[in-house]
Amino acid sequence: MSVESVVQFRVRYSETDQMGTYSNSSALDWFECGRTEFFRQTGTSYAEMEDRGVLLPVIESYIKYGGRAKYDDLLEMTTTGRLVGKARIRCDVRIVHAGASKPVAEGYTIHAFVNPAGKPIRAPKWFIEAMDAVLR
Amino acid sequence: MSVESVVQFRVRYSETDQMGTYSNSSALDWFECGRTEFFRQTGTSYAEMEDRGVLLPVIESYIKYGGRAKYDDLLEMTTTGRLVGKARIRCDVRIVHAGASKPVAEGYTIHAFVNPAGKPIRAPKWFIEAMDAVLR
Amino acid sequence: MSVESVVQFRVRYSETDQMGTYSNSSALDWFECGRTEFFRQTGTSYAEMEDRGVLLPVIESYIKYGGRAKYDDLLEMTTTGRLVGKARIRCDVRIVHAGASKPVAEGYTIHAFVNPAGKPIRAPKWFIEAMDAVLR
Amino acid sequence: MSVESVVQFRVRYSETDQMGTYSNSSALDWFECGRTEFFRQTGTSYAEMEDRGVLLPVIESYIKYGGRAKYDDLLEMTTTGRLVGKARIRCDVRIVHAGASKPVAEGYTIHAFVNPAGKPIRAPKWFIEAMDAVLR
Repeated sequence: MSVESVVQFRVRYSETDQMGTYSNSSALDWFECGRTEFFRQTGTSYAEMEDRGVLLPVIESYIKYGGRAKYDDLLEMTTTGRLVGKARIRCDVRIVHAGASKPVAEGYTIHAFVNPAGKPIRAPKWFIEAMDAVLR
Repeated sequence: MSVESVVQFRVRYSETDQMGTYSNSSALDWFECGRTEFFRQTGTSYAEMEDRGVLLPVIESYIKYGGRAKYDDLLEMTTTGRLVGKARIRCDVRIVHAGASKPVAEGYTIHAFVNPAGKPIRAPKWFIEAMDAVLR
Repeated sequence: MSVESVVQFRVRYSETDQMGTYSNSSALDWFECGRTEFFRQTGTSYAEMEDRGVLLPVIESYIKYGGRAKYDDLLEMTTTGRLVGKARIRCDVRIVHAGASKPVAEGYTIHAFVNPAGKPIRAPKWFIEAMDAVLR
Repeated sequence: MSVESVVQFRVRYSETDQMGTYSNSSALDWFECGRTEFFRQTGTSYAEMEDRGVLLPVIESYIKYGGRAKYDDLLEMTTTGRLVGKARIRCDVRIVHAGASKPVAEGYTIHAFVNPAGKPIRAPKWFIEAMDAVLR
């Protein structure tokens, strides 16, 4: 069970570093933007999830950096989410130059479902159903 | 009435951009670090101020960028704070290379005193007294 | 003589801070994104300008922070550029919630024209002509 | 063969997000600061390495996020580096609250040795010798 979302964006000038390509930490910010669009696609945006008391802090991240991407390059990011057990979600991300196939960066983040106090909770029923609905 | 604080720090790699010097927005992050040490020096850290329900969002910022600063350069930042009226604080900041006098960046931020709900408030008495005490 | 560009974007999660709104330095990153689209509109993207040996470091920035903007809020940024003398360009920026008029942030950046070695130069003729052409 | 470096630093306000703790991408910026001090300890700073034509782009990163860390918390980061084969270096990083043992974040980055044109090269002899010297 997984849901996929695709977004395009350009490398910001502030995201470059003196190597002339994007700074390695920018990839995690981009992954976060990918998740934002991924959750919107399930019918409940992540902003609404937090309003409902469901937070998804990152508990693990992995990135494999591939080809270079420079300022103003147009990139395409594909985010695929799936539940892992009852209390985790894993988002796999792949970033390429728009129209190309060689990965600029690919990796994943794993998230726990927690309440506003930071206590682990199970994935809410409405979220599981929303994921199901998108798949059908 | 003003209180002065001096800190040294190094330019991070992630703060550079493809021009080979620090990204212009980094200066505002540095100013924020300068304020953190400035407030600590008054006896009440900014973290404690927020715990007490006093927040200081930036309402205005100005920066004049001077000489270049590169990755790993050791910089020295001087922050001077003073109350402006009863509900504002202004922090003047000057960043130079350690041991040098030519400014890398100089400017100021102006802050409103607000409560956790974002409502403007007056500078608390304990804060005004703390500023006074440091000056004596 | 000025050229105007409008873009929409959403506040990133990483751009928020513990006040629950966008971090003050993010505004300078956004201004930079606004300039990118502004220059693209003149017919020569800023990436191409740098390839041609024309760099535009920020030498001054001013921001007045207005209403709050939260994670995932859709913002609209208008960037207006104009030459100041023969060796400076000034970009005025205004950010509002899409469809609203109250400014979230407004301000300007001033840029020097420099060559790759950092030496001040005059605005190139092709750039001035491109600005003119967009205005006609 | 490994070299260890320890640094202390405070969480910046701009590094927090609306969850009230540090933004997940900040960990990669911190790892980068840890490497800076790690390389300085080998006798050749990373800035000098780049001046000598040896660059170390990140090709892989992994982070496991542990306990929360808030604005102004004093953290301690331990970076351990070791050569992996002849053309890679791996840096293992562990971040805890100063004086505590529970990890705030731990993980690693793997780096390729490349020349300024981005071509993979072998770890230079002077670097290998510097690593050896620190160990003795």
